[in-house]
Amino acid sequence: RSAAPRPPARASRRLLRRMMRPDDANIAGNVHGGTVLKMIEEAGAIISTRHCNSQAGERCVAVLARVERTDFLSPMCIGEVANVSAEITYTSKHSVEVQVTVLSENILTGAKKVTNKATLWYVPLSLKNVNKVVEVPAMQYARKEQEDEGRKRYEEQKLDRLETKQRNGDVIVPMVGPAEPHTVGYSQSSLIHLVGPSDCTLLGFVHGGVTMKLMDEVAGIVAARHCKTNIVTASVDAINFHEKIKKGSVITISGRMTFTSNKSMEIEVFVDADPFVDEPQERYRAVSAFFTYVSLSKEGKPLPVPQLLVESEEEKRRFEEGKGRYLQTKAKRQAQLQQAAQP
Amino acid sequence: RSAAPRPPARASRRLLRRMMRPDDANIAGNVHGGTVLKMIEEAGAIISTRHCNSQAGERCVAVLARVERTDFLSPMCIGEVANVSAEITYTSKHSVEVQVTVLSENILTGAKKVTNKATLWYVPLSLKNVNKVVEVPAMQYARKEQEDEGRKRYEEQKLDRLETKQRNGDVIVPMVGPAEPHTVGYSQSSLIHLVGPSDCTLLGFVHGGVTMKLMDEVAGIVAARHCKTNIVTASVDAINFHEKIKKGSVITISGRMTFTSNKSMEIEVFVDADPFVDEPQERYRAVSAFFTYVSLSKEGKPLPVPQLLVESEEEKRRFEEGKGRYLQTKAKRQAQLQQAAQP
Amino acid sequence: RSAAPRPPARASRRLLRRMMRPDDANIAGNVHGGTVLKMIEEAGAIISTRHCNSQAGERCVAVLARVERTDFLSPMCIGEVANVSAEITYTSKHSVEVQVTVLSENILTGAKKVTNKATLWYVPLSLKNVNKVVEVPAMQYARKEQEDEGRKRYEEQKLDRLETKQRNGDVIVPMVGPAEPHTVGYSQSSLIHLVGPSDCTLLGFVHGGVTMKLMDEVAGIVAARHCKTNIVTASVDAINFHEKIKKGSVITISGRMTFTSNKSMEIEVFVDADPFVDEPQERYRAVSAFFTYVSLSKEGKPLPVPQLLVESEEEKRRFEEGKGRYLQTKAKRQAQLQQAAQP
Repeated sequence: RSAAPRPPARASRRLLRRMMRPDDANIAGNVHGGTVLKMIEEAGAIISTRHCNSQAGERCVAVLARVERTDFLSPMCIGEVANVSAEITYTSKHSVEVQVTVLSENILTGAKKVTNKATLWYVPLSLKNVNKVVEVPAMQYARKEQEDEGRKRYEEQKLDRLETKQRNGDVIVPMVGPAEPHTVGYSQSSLIHLVGPSDCTLLGFVHGGVTMKLMDEVAGIVAARHCKTNIVTASVDAINFHEKIKKGSVITISGRMTFTSNKSMEIEVFVDADPFVDEPQERYRAVSAFFTYVSLSKEGKPLPVPQLLVESEEEKRRFEEGKGRYLQTKAKRQAQLQQAAQP
Repeated sequence: RSAAPRPPARASRRLLRRMMRPDDANIAGNVHGGTVLKMIEEAGAIISTRHCNSQAGERCVAVLARVERTDFLSPMCIGEVANVSAEITYTSKHSVEVQVTVLSENILTGAKKVTNKATLWYVPLSLKNVNKVVEVPAMQYARKEQEDEGRKRYEEQKLDRLETKQRNGDVIVPMVGPAEPHTVGYSQSSLIHLVGPSDCTLLGFVHGGVTMKLMDEVAGIVAARHCKTNIVTASVDAINFHEKIKKGSVITISGRMTFTSNKSMEIEVFVDADPFVDEPQERYRAVSAFFTYVSLSKEGKPLPVPQLLVESEEEKRRFEEGKGRYLQTKAKRQAQLQQAAQP
Repeated sequence: RSAAPRPPARASRRLLRRMMRPDDANIAGNVHGGTVLKMIEEAGAIISTRHCNSQAGERCVAVLARVERTDFLSPMCIGEVANVSAEITYTSKHSVEVQVTVLSENILTGAKKVTNKATLWYVPLSLKNVNKVVEVPAMQYARKEQEDEGRKRYEEQKLDRLETKQRNGDVIVPMVGPAEPHTVGYSQSSLIHLVGPSDCTLLGFVHGGVTMKLMDEVAGIVAARHCKTNIVTASVDAINFHEKIKKGSVITISGRMTFTSNKSMEIEVFVDADPFVDEPQERYRAVSAFFTYVSLSKEGKPLPVPQLLVESEEEKRRFEEGKGRYLQTKAKRQAQLQQAAQP
C-alpha cells in the first residue's frame, strides 16, 4: 500500500471530469443545466467532506445547505469533457464555503470555455448520528482580508436562508380544466420521483445535486411549454436546502412561470417530500428556487419570449417580484461591468 | 416545516412525469415498451404504498403481484414527456388494485395522446418482516357498484394467478447447432442480469418494473431477429409475479416466439432467479408472460410478419394456444367496439 | 416453486446479453471499450460466484483479482446485441480462472463477430467477513493436461502480480502551465469519481468492471487529446487489482501517454482511492494498467498517429519500456500466426 501525500485544501483542485453523453443533453445536443448542477454539487461534496475529515475526530459527510446564485455562461455539448474544480474559500464553526468552476473542453479542437462558477455551503453531519453537526477544522487563510470577506458572505447567506424559509408555505395548485397559451396555468408542470439508493449519500439522504437536476428538468419543461422552442438554463437563484430528504421518499417537484422579460423567463420551483412509509407522514417543503431560462434559435441566438399572461392577483404580485429580481440582477451586472472597466 | 394536506386516494393523481431520453428508445427513436412498463409500475408502487401507510399501524411497502393485460395504444418518442397518473380502484383485505394511465405529450406542439391504460395489483409487505403481508386500509367507494365490480375483478385475477402457476415448470432449452430462419430456435434469446441496489425497493427486492423492462428487452430481441425490421410492443398479457427476487440474485430472462398472425408476433418470456449466494441455492421461476409485437415500416405503418415455422409437437401445441389467445383478444375487441357503437 | 437443475460449471454459458445504447458509445457510434470490459467482468463475477457457492459451506462473493491482456478484435455499434459467455477453466485453492467471450450480433442482418476473448481471475471473499478468502470447490477437468496448463497459467500470473505491485509508487504530477501539442503533459488527464451504491457488489466494494470502465474513459480522453480524431480501444494489458475500493470512496483515475508506434498509442492509467470518511485516511494505489488505442478515419480505417514528444529522462525511459512491450506483443502475434499456418 503506497501512500501518496494529501494536498492542502486551499489550492483549487480538479475534482471531476467526464465526457458528456447523449442522456446528459436535450434533443438539440445542449447539456442540461441540471447535469451541470449535479456535477458541481458532487465536486463540492467531495472537497468539503475531505476537509471535514482531515483531522482525527468524528467521521462525517458534508451535506449541501445552500448554493449561491449561479450563471450558465456558455452551453456545453455532447462529446465535450466537463472539468470541475473546487476550492475551499471559508470555514465557519459548522459550515464550509466551496467555490466550484466548470470548464468545458472540446478534446478535438482543444478549445476550453468557463461554463459556470458556483459557490456552495456545506454542513458536516456525523456518520454515526445524522442529526449531529460536527465541528469543521479551521482553514488557513493567505491574507487576513480573505477571512473577513468570507465571514461577511457567511453572515449574508445566513440571513437569506432565514428569509426564504418564510416563503415555503406556498403551494402550486393543480389546474382545473384547459388553460390559455402563455398563462401561468398553461405551462405549470410537476414531476414525481421515487428516491432510490443511487440518489443517496452514505448517510441515506438525497444528494443535493440530484434534487437540483430534477428541479432543472421541471423548469425546462415549463419553459419549453411556454415558448415551444429550444430552451436552455441561463441562471439559478440562490437555493437553500432546508430539510433533508430520506431514501424511499417520494418527491414532488413543481414549477410555474413567474415572470418574463423580452428574452428570458423566470420559473419558480418547489420540492416537496413525502416520507411515505415513515410516521409521522407529513409532507414537507424541502427546497425552493428560481430558474431563469432563455429561448434559442437553431443558430444558438436568443429569441424573443412570449409575454406571460398573468390573471389572478397572486400571479400579478409574483410577476412584479420577479421583475424586481430581474432589474436587481441587471443593475448588479452593470455595476460589475463598470467596475471591470475602471483601472 | 409546512405541512400540505394529503389528497384523498380515490382521485386520479399524476404520479410521474419525465422527458424521454435517448437511452429510453430504440434506434428508430421509439420509446421501448419496457420503459413505459417500468414507469407504470413505479407510479403504481407509489400510490399503493402511500395508501397502505395512510393509517397508523405497521409501516409497509407495496409490492407488485400482477399486471393485467395492457395494450400499447400509440408509440412515444424521444423528447416527449410521459405523464403517468394513477388511482386506486379497489382494495381487498391484503391487496390493492391500481389503474394507471400514461399520456405522451409533445411539449412543443402541445399534442397529447393516451399511450397506455394498465391495471396492477399490489400486496403490502411489512418493512420489519418482509414475509408478513399487512392489512390494507379499506377505501371509500362513490357507488356500491364500484365495490361489487372490483370484487369481481379481484376474484377473476385470483383464479388466473393460480392457473399460470401451473405453466411455470416449462424451460427454454438452449439451441444446439445453427437453426433455420423463422424457426422458434432461430430467434429464441436470453439475457442475464445481476441484480444491483438500484434495481431494488426499500425491502431489497427487485422492482416489478425493472423485471418487466428486461422482459420487454428480451421479447424485442426475439421479435427483431425474426423480422429484421423496426419492431414495437403492441401488448402484454397479464403478468403474475409469483416469487420475489432478492438483491444480489442473478436473473435469466428467456424468450421464444410462440405464434405469428399476419401482422403480429407473440413471444413467451420466462424469468428465472438464482439467489446464488444464498442457501438453499435452488433456481426458481419468478415470472412468465406473453408479449405481442408488431413490425413497422419507416413510415410507421404495420408490415406483414414472416410466419413462424413450427417443428416439434410442443411448438405446434404452443402455436395453437397462441392462436387461441389471439382470436379471443380479437373477439373481445370487436365486442367492445360494438358496445361502444351502441347508444 | 419449480426447481430447474443447475448446469455443470464447465460448459461455456451465455451469461449476459444486452443491446448497446447511445450512452454506451462515443459520438461516432462505436461502443466504448470500457462498456465491453464492464460486461466481461460482470459475466466473470457471476460464473465464479456461482461456482464458489456450489457446495454447502460459507457463502461468498467472487471478487476480481486480475484480467489478462485483452485484445479488442472488432468494434461494436449502437443497436447491436452483445452476447457474453463464460466458462471456468481452472481453480486453485483460493482462486478461479474464467474465460469470457464477447460476440456482437447485428440482429437485423444476423451477422455475428467475436469482439473479445478475456481471461479473468477471481478470489472468493466471505459474505460474513470480507477479509476472509474462502476455499474454492475443485473443478473436474476433462483431461489431465487441462489441469497442468491451468496450473502453469496460475503460477505465471501470480509472479506477474507481485512484479506490478512494485511499480505502484509512481504518481502522475499535474501539469503547471500550458504544454506543447504531442507532449506527455499536453494530453495527460484525470477523472474523479465518487463511488455510489450502484457501483458496488453485495460486499460494498466497487465492481472491478466499473473501475475498468472509468480507466478506459480516461485513456480515451488522453488518446483523443493527442490525435484529435475518432479513437478506439485496441487492447488492454494485464490489470491487477491489488486493493479493494470501498463504497463512499473518492477515486482518482489518471492517464498519461507512454509510447506511440506508427498506428497506435499506449496510455498508462492509475487508480488511486481515497476512503475519505474512514480512518486511517491514507490514499492508496488500487489498480494500474496499460491501454492501447488506435485512431480511425471516418471509413473506419487506421490512421497514422502523431509521434509522442518525450522530454524528461523519465518520459524517455517509459517510452523505451512501452516500445519493449509493443515489440514483444508484435513478436508474440507473429509466432501465433506462424503456428496457426502450420498443419
